[in-house]
Amino acid sequence: MTTPGLEDARAAYEKLQAEGMKLDLTRGKPSAEQLDLATPMLSLPGPDDFRAADGTDTRNYGGLHGLPELREIFAPFLHVPVEQLIACGNSSLELMHDTLVHALLSPLPDAERRWADEERVVFLAPVPGYDRHFGVCERLGIELVPVPMTDDGPDMDVVEQLVAADPTVKGIWCVPKYSNPTGAVYSDETVRRLASMPTAAPDFRIVWDNAYAVHHLTEDEVEIADVLALAAEAGHPNRPFVVGSTSKITLAGAGVAFLGASAENVDWWIRLTSKRTIGPDKVNHLRHVRFLRDADGLRAHMRAHREIIAPKFAAVDEVLTREFADTPGVEWSKPAGGYFVTLTVPEGTATEIVRLAKEAGLALTPAGATHPYGEDPQDSIIRLAPTFPVLAEVRKAMEGVAVCVRLALAERG
Amino acid sequence: MTTPGLEDARAAYEKLQAEGMKLDLTRGKPSAEQLDLATPMLSLPGPDDFRAADGTDTRNYGGLHGLPELREIFAPFLHVPVEQLIACGNSSLELMHDTLVHALLSPLPDAERRWADEERVVFLAPVPGYDRHFGVCERLGIELVPVPMTDDGPDMDVVEQLVAADPTVKGIWCVPKYSNPTGAVYSDETVRRLASMPTAAPDFRIVWDNAYAVHHLTEDEVEIADVLALAAEAGHPNRPFVVGSTSKITLAGAGVAFLGASAENVDWWIRLTSKRTIGPDKVNHLRHVRFLRDADGLRAHMRAHREIIAPKFAAVDEVLTREFADTPGVEWSKPAGGYFVTLTVPEGTATEIVRLAKEAGLALTPAGATHPYGEDPQDSIIRLAPTFPVLAEVRKAMEGVAVCVRLALAERG
Repeated sequence: MTTPGLEDARAAYEKLQAEGMKLDLTRGKPSAEQLDLATPMLSLPGPDDFRAADGTDTRNYGGLHGLPELREIFAPFLHVPVEQLIACGNSSLELMHDTLVHALLSPLPDAERRWADEERVVFLAPVPGYDRHFGVCERLGIELVPVPMTDDGPDMDVVEQLVAADPTVKGIWCVPKYSNPTGAVYSDETVRRLASMPTAAPDFRIVWDNAYAVHHLTEDEVEIADVLALAAEAGHPNRPFVVGSTSKITLAGAGVAFLGASAENVDWWIRLTSKRTIGPDKVNHLRHVRFLRDADGLRAHMRAHREIIAPKFAAVDEVLTREFADTPGVEWSKPAGGYFVTLTVPEGTATEIVRLAKEAGLALTPAGATHPYGEDPQDSIIRLAPTFPVLAEVRKAMEGVAVCVRLALAERG
Repeated sequence: MTTPGLEDARAAYEKLQAEGMKLDLTRGKPSAEQLDLATPMLSLPGPDDFRAADGTDTRNYGGLHGLPELREIFAPFLHVPVEQLIACGNSSLELMHDTLVHALLSPLPDAERRWADEERVVFLAPVPGYDRHFGVCERLGIELVPVPMTDDGPDMDVVEQLVAADPTVKGIWCVPKYSNPTGAVYSDETVRRLASMPTAAPDFRIVWDNAYAVHHLTEDEVEIADVLALAAEAGHPNRPFVVGSTSKITLAGAGVAFLGASAENVDWWIRLTSKRTIGPDKVNHLRHVRFLRDADGLRAHMRAHREIIAPKFAAVDEVLTREFADTPGVEWSKPAGGYFVTLTVPEGTATEIVRLAKEAGLALTPAGATHPYGEDPQDSIIRLAPTFPVLAEVRKAMEGVAVCVRLALAERG
């Protein structure tokens, strides 16, 4: 016997399938309209414009720290002194990966040995979190231990206990502002505790992936505490590695990534990197300087992004509110920045919802992707990425998501 | 008592010092005039030009293999089937470094275990060779065993013996065309022997750094044998990793590097790299396609380079011939391509010559740099890099080198 609710839900789902939708909410990719904002870059720096402010010919080899004038623009936004900020290639994921590779193969400052010679290396993974962070650890044989996220960042009581007790815990992944995927912003207190907590490992590191430093969805340009300064004050200057990039500012595949840390960490990193490359693409650095100009130029550019994507996030919230405002167990984040909405569904239904969506032509990030090893023990978290499709498609996709959620809930009874 | 020869040599050196020269023959860098050849790239691909031939928006994320149309241009020059050739970032050194890192941290195809779990990993280093190759191994804890270079490539009798006897020998560094620094071109027989020799290690690899594939100094566009095809024929398809780049074709700091190998090696490499990055800078790939256009465009561009740098190599040869044609123990290479001249001086004098040059304001690559661990047991090899200074300065620098050589020989008596 089927309940009337189930029959309605099935009918709606069959109708959805018949529409032959082909939409994708999987990845945090900028839309073509956002990329168009950076169209002038396609002909920059322009003929005969290749000299850096200090006279360097950006076309030639060299300059491992990257172009100073580009680092100057981003230093204040990333809270890193310009002399401790490095501008690199097109991927911050690379920088995080390579920093852990360096730590595996050469002792970090404060380390007793290189991590490859440790019996076990553990990183804390606030969950839900970013699947590519977890992928780096899985690939490098670094074990992941999940820690619950709160609205203020990772649950610091849990974190403090784990890092104090166990010297194999060598690091923690953090997306401190507009976190992937919950949109949480770390409170000043969370940052202070992360920066100052005692750790059993002398070479404990925070990977501070400030991916959404300037990616505001509201007029309120949220600020977070300065982790490098707080760590230095607390006597742990080498603890944070800060990263960021212009991938979601200028061109997603042709941006510039940044790494910031203590002078000692930066020296260590540059020394090892000098064996790997003769320097980053400084012409692309100059291209970014010519296009963004300065802090005000960057802010204005990010406002133009906001005008394109904020309505998409509003559409997600609008559909979910209309459909599920009164449904127990269905909740979602209302991020003030970043690229994701976290949809929480009743325990044990996320995988089924993603499957239903897929069979209706709607690609969602696999359930579990927000957890280490792809395993969400509650099977209740779905990450929604609304930036890439055009607004009408976001709305349509979300209405499809709603149909799938309704059916999964009705099937569950 | 000093010989009259010594007094003349000292007088000439004092005169040289008085000139207050400030010249640099250390690195294989293109000159500003060469970089000017690629000036149009500074405004490419141009407004609204961002679609790849297959419709891909090059501005966005993705595409780990790189832009197909760029790979098509370079595939024949590197002797790699286009589907096995990957276009990456701005540095082939990165690709070589990262390939060895991957091999250390994940088993290569054919490997029994990852190299980090081997007691000892050895690479053969043909000497004189490229200091940055050696630097990668030194940084990664891979031991270097020198092998003598001949005019036809590494001494294959020595190589075959070492690789057959010892399973810890996991690889060899090769610059097969216009070798750094001797300019030697590997003979077909050398390539065939490298591709087919029995090795004790099942996961033996050739790093085939074809850095100067199209960098001819004469009208004769020298070709080398196809190492990938020969290795496959001999039953060792996974043996070679081929690399190359446009660093000395377009813009030294803003070029594109390539990696080619067997399908199995490429899959292994892409699988590991997919944890590290979401993809290379495809806009820069497109920029290269728009600028170089095709194989003929590339050839024409390289002829323009030749017109600029061939006279510099001629000047080096001219000064050395004039000064040392009849001096026993002083010899030099006459490369038909590439970026370097190897100057061989009597045993035990190279370090002194470099020191004298430095004190006269002339920077030369440190003696020993062409050998693993910076140790040239004969102390007789000096690498000269004549491309960067303008022609008049190359001549002046070489006259300075001659003065230093004369003094060192006279001091030695």
